[in-house]
Order: sequence, then structure tokens, then C-alpha cells
Amino acid sequence: MNKAQEVSPVVADLVIKNVRQNAGASVNVAIVDGKIASVGDHVANAREMIDGGGAIMIAGLVEAHTHLDKTLLGMPWYRNDVGPRLIDKIENERVQKRALGIDPVRQSARQVVLSISKGTTHIRSHVDVDTECGLAGIEGVMATRERYKGAIDVEIVAFPQSGMLVRPGTVELMKAALEMGAEVVGGLDPSSMDRDPKGHLDVVFGLAERFGRPVDIHLHEPGELGAFSVELIIERTKSLSMQGKVTISHAFCLGMPDQDYVARLIDDLAAAQVHIMTSGPASRPVPPVKRLQEAGIVVCAGTDGMRDTWGPYGNADMLERAMLVGLRNNFRRDDEVERALDTCTFGGARVMDLQGYGLDVGCKADFVLVSGEILAEAIVTRAPRQLVVKNGRVVARDGKALIEAE
Amino acid sequence: MNKAQEVSPVVADLVIKNVRQNAGASVNVAIVDGKIASVGDHVANAREMIDGGGAIMIAGLVEAHTHLDKTLLGMPWYRNDVGPRLIDKIENERVQKRALGIDPVRQSARQVVLSISKGTTHIRSHVDVDTECGLAGIEGVMATRERYKGAIDVEIVAFPQSGMLVRPGTVELMKAALEMGAEVVGGLDPSSMDRDPKGHLDVVFGLAERFGRPVDIHLHEPGELGAFSVELIIERTKSLSMQGKVTISHAFCLGMPDQDYVARLIDDLAAAQVHIMTSGPASRPVPPVKRLQEAGIVVCAGTDGMRDTWGPYGNADMLERAMLVGLRNNFRRDDEVERALDTCTFGGARVMDLQGYGLDVGCKADFVLVSGEILAEAIVTRAPRQLVVKNGRVVARDGKALIEAE
Ligand SMILES: [Zn+2]
Ligand SMILES: [Zn+2]
Repeated sequence: MNKAQEVSPVVADLVIKNVRQNAGASVNVAIVDGKIASVGDHVANAREMIDGGGAIMIAGLVEAHTHLDKTLLGMPWYRNDVGPRLIDKIENERVQKRALGIDPVRQSARQVVLSISKGTTHIRSHVDVDTECGLAGIEGVMATRERYKGAIDVEIVAFPQSGMLVRPGTVELMKAALEMGAEVVGGLDPSSMDRDPKGHLDVVFGLAERFGRPVDIHLHEPGELGAFSVELIIERTKSLSMQGKVTISHAFCLGMPDQDYVARLIDDLAAAQVHIMTSGPASRPVPPVKRLQEAGIVVCAGTDGMRDTWGPYGNADMLERAMLVGLRNNFRRDDEVERALDTCTFGGARVMDLQGYGLDVGCKADFVLVSGEILAEAIVTRAPRQLVVKNGRVVARDGKALIEAE
Repeated sequence: MNKAQEVSPVVADLVIKNVRQNAGASVNVAIVDGKIASVGDHVANAREMIDGGGAIMIAGLVEAHTHLDKTLLGMPWYRNDVGPRLIDKIENERVQKRALGIDPVRQSARQVVLSISKGTTHIRSHVDVDTECGLAGIEGVMATRERYKGAIDVEIVAFPQSGMLVRPGTVELMKAALEMGAEVVGGLDPSSMDRDPKGHLDVVFGLAERFGRPVDIHLHEPGELGAFSVELIIERTKSLSMQGKVTISHAFCLGMPDQDYVARLIDDLAAAQVHIMTSGPASRPVPPVKRLQEAGIVVCAGTDGMRDTWGPYGNADMLERAMLVGLRNNFRRDDEVERALDTCTFGGARVMDLQGYGLDVGCKADFVLVSGEILAEAIVTRAPRQLVVKNGRVVARDGKALIEAE
């Protein structure tokens, strides 16, 4: 009796025949109680049997940074004629939320369903908290999370998009968001936005300490200004023993010209186990993914805002994100392209501290069947996902989610 | 009797009903003898009638820079573990052409058919000329051009990929290529590759003068070195009165930090009517598309090498290229996204000096129906092309070419 048989003595709920985990040899994968019960030659007795046709099986895609509350997906086209500065976009968005009627419940549902269709099984979403929208975004995304529970996991970051100290009342709303159900404390450009790096970060880490939550800070600040913020974040991470619980999103400053300074920051980030999120933006300096990974830093990836008042791009496809991260980092070799994919799978899983993530026996049955001879081909072709399984249940087939949004 | 009726008194060969040219008002477009005979409310009598269903009609996409002779499309996956330098990639490719059996006839046909399926109606392809492959690439792409004549137009650049002066015998092959049917004289990194900028450019422009042909030079040289090459190219363009006939492909140096120098180069390029091609690469400095266009410089775009021994990316989709050019240039506003599309349509048409290109009455009937409410949406969604018409004939439907390659 082989090993695969030993671990699945019961009738499986689902067996996926003839799939190649991470483009390896063909195996059959049995699922029992939402978990991977066996992987091997053996074909278990099963209530449902699906032929994978030799497709590649990868672990569920992880969207580690997006903004579910404010996509315009499915709404009439928004003609963008917004000014060039960051503050133009932030202020325009606050106005448009009301003017266009961007309903966080409806819009987050639309993006979540699109994500499911693309093979995403886990999302970390930043959600705006400010004195105009209050907690409407948090409530909306929480409603969507509840509605699609089982088909996708959503983690919420309370995100002070319009600043915290510059808009009195925001800190109280942040507290309320964390009490209500947001899991992560967000932050944003401590110097550029709140004009007070110490003050901003003391509040962010103060909330993290008080509620015992992880932190994820948007840091667009360029060059040496951003580097200073990175230093302040590292200091607080260490003094609060929050190693492994802090993520810096974007971290454009790690792409700055002063390579000696960058090398020092990378060493310090690795020592403090601070994670980095990149969307692989083509028009900004970026954190060097390969160097970070080689230094032992966990790197995850995300779509960031998609089809919103900031810009028209994005389709929630984390395989496309892997391509964009690969293109931005000049990844050409197969081992490099696989690094880009890792930011969209295991990197995100580690940042979100997902338990039981992966394709091994005992892992949660969250996976995707993708087309290609090997992994890099799956990324460059990005064919519609053949099958998406979440918690052992099929949630999408041939590029279409089996659940609909309004 | 309205104007549309006046210009199409005969029975049309084809009428496309209910399309929106460049996302404008719904019109019917009649085609007679491969040309657009009328655009308007009137529905002409026609041998064939197609309902456009309100889709957007854009002029045929122009792939202004690719390498048809050496894609690996349809071949077994090539595991890339090539070294990091430019010369590593060039030398590896020469070896692999033989080792993998990259047949220019078969491979160029595969890429051409893929391009047709994506709505490309015109291609400028650089084709390797060197002392190892000789003229096999030129002959192969010429065979493909002949085979798909009518369904797509292909222009050939004789391209000394492995250098010209450093490999004696190459200049003679370049001459033979131009005599045989290549239309454009190519060049490559005069300093980095041939180690002799004056010598290299004198040969390139000498061939152009002798054969009366345009020039298109690959210029990857960074910063001030590339800028020096640009200066030498401008000098020769003016002294030979080749204004409007010279293209610099890539021109990464125009993305260098010294903005005063860049401004001077842009002025001089505009004055000499030198065109610029960009693929919008995410990992390299790039020519600033909007600044160039505003200075009056024609900017075109291309896929460059796709799925080859240099790297795995690329799918010949010029709408995706427009997205990548947009992302690289931080184009967010609708008017900016339309600039990116222009590089993939009219920009390429001007660089290739296409006659009768466009959607007006009298233009050649080369166009594509794309999905979207407005142009930017067509680019960000990139749905399979509904219909592709070339020379008045339908050549692709619903994302599939009506002609096959082997
Ligand atoms: Zn964000
Ligand atoms: Zn090229």
C-alpha cells in the first residue's frame, strides 16, 4: 500500500486527476473535508472526479494589496482628467465617491467575484477610513466578505487614505474600524501626508500595540525621505517586538539611486523581518524583488487600486501581476519568472500569515489549474483559469466564477 | 441625398453596421474595392453585411518593431538560464537558432497569424543578418510575407544583430538583403556593439543613401553614450536630407537623468524629424512619450522580441502594448491613454509611411472592432478582437485568425 493510499482511506469529496503540481509530474489530488488528503498515483474513491488534463496546479493566488471599496468595475466609464499630484487624486476621489455613487458593498462584490474567476483565493484589502466616508467602506467590504465567505478569504486593513493627524476624528474612526472587524492597522506616507512622521507612526504602532494587530503602511515617499520613514518603521517594529508583523507597501524608496543606502536598508529590513509589497509599477522606482528575496525578506504583490478614479488599469489577475512584477524587475530566466510568481502566491501567504497554505498533503484545498507546459508559460500566456478550488469546492471554471455579483 | 450616399453609388462589397469610429457616434461603414467608400447613417446595398453591435472601430494596429524570424512560438518551452549581459543573449541566440532549429519560415508565419488574430494589419520586422545565419532569416520572412499577402503587410529591416564591423562579411550580406527585398537599413548600438560609432553609422547611412532606403537603428546604449549616438544619427539624417526617414528604436538614453541634455536632444530630434520607437519596457529608462509627441516627434510602438531566447514575455497584442506604454509613462487620464494607443496606430503608420491609413472615406479598409465604451476601456480590457478587416476582407473574428499557420 503506497503512502498516498494510507493518508486517504475514506471516500474523497473530490479528486482532481492528472494535474502537475507546480509543473511537476502528473498526479491525482484527493480532497477530504476541504483539505488535500493525498497526492500521488493512486486514484481515491471520490464523490466527484475532475480530469485536470495535465494542467499545472498552483496554490491559490494571493492578492496582497488592493482596494475593494472603491473600484469602478461595472459602472459607466469614468473619464479621467485628474491633475498630476497625489493630493489631486486623493481629493478627487473623496468628491467622486459621492458624485458617482461608489457603493462599497456593490463594488467590492464585483471585484471579489472577478478575483475568484482569476484564481485568487485570498485578498488583503486596504479600505478607506476618513471623516467623510466614515466606516461605510469597512462596513461594505465586511458585508462582501461575509457574503462570499467560503469562496474567498478577505482580510481588511483600516486605511487612513486622507491622512490621520491632518483630519481630526480619523484616529477615533480607525479605532472603531479595528473594533468592528478590520484586522490590520494601515498607514500612509507619514511625512508627505500627515507632515509629521513621528506623530503618524506613533499613532499607527500605538493602535497596533493596543489591539495586537499587524501593520501595513503605504509608503510612496521617494528617495531619502521614504528611506527615513523606513528607518522609523524598523525602529518601532523592533521596539514593539513586531518582527514578521509589519509590511511596507510600495516602498519606492528602495529603488532610489543611492545603492549603499539601499543595501543598508535591506539589511535592516531583513533583520527586523519587515515584509515588502510591490505592484511592480512601470513608472516608479521599485524595490528590487530578487535582492530582497535573497536577503530573506518576504515580498508579496498586489493589484493595488484597479479601474478607479486614480487610473483605468487593472483586471485583478494575479498572473498578470506576476508578469508585471517580472517585467519591472527584468526577470527573463525561468528561475526569475518563478520568483515573480512566488510574490503572488507564497509571498502573500506569508505576509497574511495564512495557515495551511500550499499544495502538500494536509494543506487547505485552495488551488488553481493553469495552462502551460511550465510555470513561466502559465504566466506569459495567462489563459482563462481552467479550475479554481477554494476550501475544497470548485468556485470557478474556464475563467468564470460560479457565483455572481449584482 | 446625403454625402454618404453620394460617395457609394455602387453595391458595396461589405458593410459594417453600427460601429463607433474611435468610440464616436454609431455609423455604418461601407467598403468598395478594399477601401472605405462611405461612413454615415446610410446603409448601402452590400454583398455582405456585418452587424458591429456598437463596437468601437479603430484603424488597424501597427506593430512597428518586432523580430518575426526568431520567436519560439509553438515550439517546446525554452528554459531560459542565459547570463545577464546583452552579449550573453546575442551569443546564446546564435547558438540556439541551430540547436533548437528555429526555422524563420515556420516561426514568422506563427507570429504573423497571431498578430492578425489581435488586429494588427501592418508589421515592421527587424530580421537578423549575420555571417552564421546569412540571409536565411530574410528569405524566411519574405516567404511568410508572400504567403500572407493581402491579410497583413510586412516590412523588413535588414538587422545586423551580431554587429557589422566586428564581423567581416556582414556588410556584404546587408547589401544582399536590401537587394533581395528588405526595405529598411537596420543598425545596432554603434559604440557598444561595433566599438566604432562613426564607422558603424557611416556604413548604415551609406547603405541607406546607396539604396535610397529608410533607416531604423536599435539604440540600447544608456545615458550620455546613447545620447552621443543620437547626435551622430541626427547629423547624418540632416546631411543626407533624410528627415522623416530615420527611426531610433528604444532610445533608452532619452530617459536619462540629465533633463537639460534630454530637452536639447528632443529639440534636435524634432528638427531633424527623427522618429522614436518604444516598447515601453518597465525595467529600463524610456523616452518620455508625451514630451516627444508634444515636441512634434512621431512615436511608434512595438512588441520587440516575443517568446524568444531573450525572454518569455509577449503575445503580439498591440492593445496590450498600448497598456504597457501607458503604464510605463504613467498615463492615467483618458487623453493620455489615447496617446499610448496612437503609438500603436497612427504613430506606426507615419513611421512606416503607410499610404491611405485611417478610418476616413477613401482610406484603405484596414481596421479592427474592439470592445469597450470608450477607447481607454478597450485598452484596459483587451477583449478578443470582434472583427479584423484587412484590404476590405475579414481576416479574423472573435480573437481567431481565419488563416492558419503550420
Ligand atoms: Zn494601495
Ligand atoms: Zn528589437
